[in-house]
Amino acid sequence: MSRNVLLLPGDGIGPEIVAEAEKVLHKVNDQFGLGLSFESALVGGAAIDETDTPLPEETLEKARKADAILLGAVGGPKWDSLPMAKRPEKGLLGLRSNLELFANLRPAILYPQLASASSLKPEVVSGLDILIVRELTGGIYFGQPRGVRELESGERQGYNTYQYTESEIRRIGRVAFEAAQQRGKKLCSVDKANVLEVTVLWREIMEDLKREYPDVELSHMYVDNAAMQLVRAPKQFDVIVTGNMFGDILSDEAAMLTGSIGMLPSASLNSDKQGMYEPCHGSAPDIAGQGIANPLATILSAAMMLRYSLNEEKAALAIEAAVSKVLDQGLRTADIMSEGGQKVSTRDMGEAVLNAL
Amino acid sequence: MSRNVLLLPGDGIGPEIVAEAEKVLHKVNDQFGLGLSFESALVGGAAIDETDTPLPEETLEKARKADAILLGAVGGPKWDSLPMAKRPEKGLLGLRSNLELFANLRPAILYPQLASASSLKPEVVSGLDILIVRELTGGIYFGQPRGVRELESGERQGYNTYQYTESEIRRIGRVAFEAAQQRGKKLCSVDKANVLEVTVLWREIMEDLKREYPDVELSHMYVDNAAMQLVRAPKQFDVIVTGNMFGDILSDEAAMLTGSIGMLPSASLNSDKQGMYEPCHGSAPDIAGQGIANPLATILSAAMMLRYSLNEEKAALAIEAAVSKVLDQGLRTADIMSEGGQKVSTRDMGEAVLNAL
Ligand SMILES: CC(C)[C@H](C(=O)O)[C@@H](O)C(=O)O
Ligand SMILES: CC(C)[C@H](C(=O)O)[C@@H](O)C(=O)O
Repeated sequence: MSRNVLLLPGDGIGPEIVAEAEKVLHKVNDQFGLGLSFESALVGGAAIDETDTPLPEETLEKARKADAILLGAVGGPKWDSLPMAKRPEKGLLGLRSNLELFANLRPAILYPQLASASSLKPEVVSGLDILIVRELTGGIYFGQPRGVRELESGERQGYNTYQYTESEIRRIGRVAFEAAQQRGKKLCSVDKANVLEVTVLWREIMEDLKREYPDVELSHMYVDNAAMQLVRAPKQFDVIVTGNMFGDILSDEAAMLTGSIGMLPSASLNSDKQGMYEPCHGSAPDIAGQGIANPLATILSAAMMLRYSLNEEKAALAIEAAVSKVLDQGLRTADIMSEGGQKVSTRDMGEAVLNAL
Repeated sequence: MSRNVLLLPGDGIGPEIVAEAEKVLHKVNDQFGLGLSFESALVGGAAIDETDTPLPEETLEKARKADAILLGAVGGPKWDSLPMAKRPEKGLLGLRSNLELFANLRPAILYPQLASASSLKPEVVSGLDILIVRELTGGIYFGQPRGVRELESGERQGYNTYQYTESEIRRIGRVAFEAAQQRGKKLCSVDKANVLEVTVLWREIMEDLKREYPDVELSHMYVDNAAMQLVRAPKQFDVIVTGNMFGDILSDEAAMLTGSIGMLPSASLNSDKQGMYEPCHGSAPDIAGQGIANPLATILSAAMMLRYSLNEEKAALAIEAAVSKVLDQGLRTADIMSEGGQKVSTRDMGEAVLNAL
């Protein structure tokens, strides 16, 4: 039985960091006899340049067939002036919706070796380990109607629709409750139920689900307060569940609490546990092509892929241990460099992980 | 010429903190011969309890006639299970929309005396002084249609509408550009123009306005990145302008960077410079009635009121100087208490400001 991994390097630093993760995957493939085969395809700006569309049919076909997908990053100033439907981001959003990757898992973990990178005081963030569960295929990202219309007055009005059905809320709720069961058994659902009707429904369904998970302690928090509490006392959280837009904002805020967003992987899963894995950071066009990007978030995304979609926990743990080891050795790419560290390139970092395996 | 100030104590700690601000206003009224007269009215939960509605007609009438409004805070668990239209928050939202208080100014300033209260490292936040300009009467807070509907499938769907017209964007943009002109001449407009059409229009109008303010440097940032940058390097910002929902989230996050949200005032203005002034913090029901709440954000809101709506800069400065003096004296309410400080009650803090005037 051969299982297929699709590599989507994308734009900016994407190709550089995916190349390192690919080497790591090849090595564990051999070491652990995983029987993985690999393919590549174009997405985002790279696909626009070649095929005039951010998500070519061929890429989508390969993605549907793949057991798991590893993505670098998409987007960059080169494509920023294109109309919305033709932008690199549409490639990413199209993959999410076509594969129904509704469950986005974004851990915010502080690596003890990198504690000093955080802009927060050590006592506030040491040991930080939050999991944000973000709904990824609904909400205002995909709501219809949307667009810009001309009003009778002659002026234009932009509009988008924020919407969730009960079943959409329920399925992401279940993922979050189950994740909380595996962890600290605390789930905080974030909404704006004092203002937005759609999140009143959200809160109701979460309350409803609670009865099925009596061992999980459920709380609710308004999104403005959550943004505040993440800064004030982030360790109060275990698992956070929220919609697409709030999740976009809060997961980036939470990631930055660690000070080392170059270290954070993410997973986007559908109900068959098929998944797309990518670093939390973006395509960083400003440093693309210089060989200085941090490949560790992508390498750790590959580990998450082995764990969640390919059921290869041992190989996942091996990669995570190797990453921890290179950090212990003091190796640092520029983004996580600090006094006493040894500054290395993207490729050196990848090689070091290979050697540590 | 007598000018009228409406006091709306509201719920939770509201009455306690507004009482202290009222004394301060009376004192500067005498000292500077401002000719202010004062009235009070009910809003929020306090109004629900008395009149069964969060914004009684009488309150709205008084508010329309007032030259300026000082609000404590609204809301609390007591009213949390009421249907949305009857909740305390609707009182606040009703005042904002009826008076067209579209421009919400939320400074996030770190008081040097309280630098250690921040959860961020001193070097990251020392000297922090950001102004967030939040649109307050449009966006998804007020967009129609909204509600919960039953789909053909039989399940329910919640929905809200995020919308802005050109003129709504333009008028808040002008407020922000003008504020930036008075300050560091840097304006960052926050949107999600890579996903949401309404914010594509937002960005276009901001770009358009730029030509009228050639001395202001305009930049654009996606909201997820802004949430991240506020944690990473908040001092990169001078003025931030954004819509109602993003502004709600980012202004609370920014406020919490200072660690002393009990110190931060806010102003909500309409195009006649009529305004409602309130502390950034909420009604804190958990400590209500104990006499330990920090009245300084409300007292500083009164100073903002004198400055923006009543054109009494001298009296505003006098209040701000008095607040700074009591901080220098080491007086601290519980929320900002730290080693070496002298812990005082709400009333003591108010008295100390009076004495410093
Ligand atoms: C690139 C963009 C469309 C995307 C999003 O908003 O979801 C990104 O910010 C993310 O969080 O993966
Ligand atoms: C109480 C609530 C409706 C309000 C808002 O969301 O605007 C509050 O959070 C604020 O920021 O003033």
